[in-house]
Amino acid sequence: MPDILHRVGIAAEPDHVFKALTTIEGIRNWWYSETHGDAAKGGAFQFRRNRLEVICADPSLVMWRYSGPAEDWVGTEIRFRLEWRDGQTYVLFSHEGWRDPNEFMHHCSTKWATFLLSLKDLVEKGEGRPEPRDMKIAVGA
Amino acid sequence: MPDILHRVGIAAEPDHVFKALTTIEGIRNWWYSETHGDAAKGGAFQFRRNRLEVICADPSLVMWRYSGPAEDWVGTEIRFRLEWRDGQTYVLFSHEGWRDPNEFMHHCSTKWATFLLSLKDLVEKGEGRPEPRDMKIAVGA
Repeated sequence: MPDILHRVGIAAEPDHVFKALTTIEGIRNWWYSETHGDAAKGGAFQFRRNRLEVICADPSLVMWRYSGPAEDWVGTEIRFRLEWRDGQTYVLFSHEGWRDPNEFMHHCSTKWATFLLSLKDLVEKGEGRPEPRDMKIAVGA
Repeated sequence: MPDILHRVGIAAEPDHVFKALTTIEGIRNWWYSETHGDAAKGGAFQFRRNRLEVICADPSLVMWRYSGPAEDWVGTEIRFRLEWRDGQTYVLFSHEGWRDPNEFMHHCSTKWATFLLSLKDLVEKGEGRPEPRDMKIAVGA
């Protein structure tokens, strides 16, 4: 099955990145401004109607499982591995479990890159670009 | 085998995007400033020591094959499908033929996203961000 893969390097220690991935305030500042719920270990959160469960939140690995309602994403898992090396925290990202490399998957791959750069900016400079201020990759998207 | 997939939508007609993909001047302005050779159908071009052959350059599909020397890329193919829809040219991108989803592939996936956004900026606004002015995704990379 095809996966979306990315890597960014963030000039900050892993715990800063971890915090941005495991708190609602953090997620609101790099991914979706309108996120609600609990992003800590064992929690669940949502943006709009989309629901995610936190299936792992260890210092070097954060994993979410998407539970609905977008059909393409149901059952997929989003992973962030954090590795401190060469004075930066590498975020090894994957979005796994896609059933089909359809056009929406192409779109999501590019969009994830922009959100990971938003995460990098948030941690390094204190300001990310969460939706609706997200970097646009197409007309209106 | 895993592929890198992306999609951007560019607010311009396909021939403008096609030109940026099939001329050395175009490629220099969104990918690598130091590109040399011939990017038209049947041509070959290079940046630094990297060699690419143009294996297709039709109005709706441009394909390059990488011939060396970077081992991870040897034999891989880079495809740009151009589709005019909803007032924009969608670029459906893939970089196919990776033997292993290693960390360098994660890096390249994110980097391709930034270069496709550079292509979008070049065509829409007249100015891209080719290397060495490329968008950084890690410390010094």
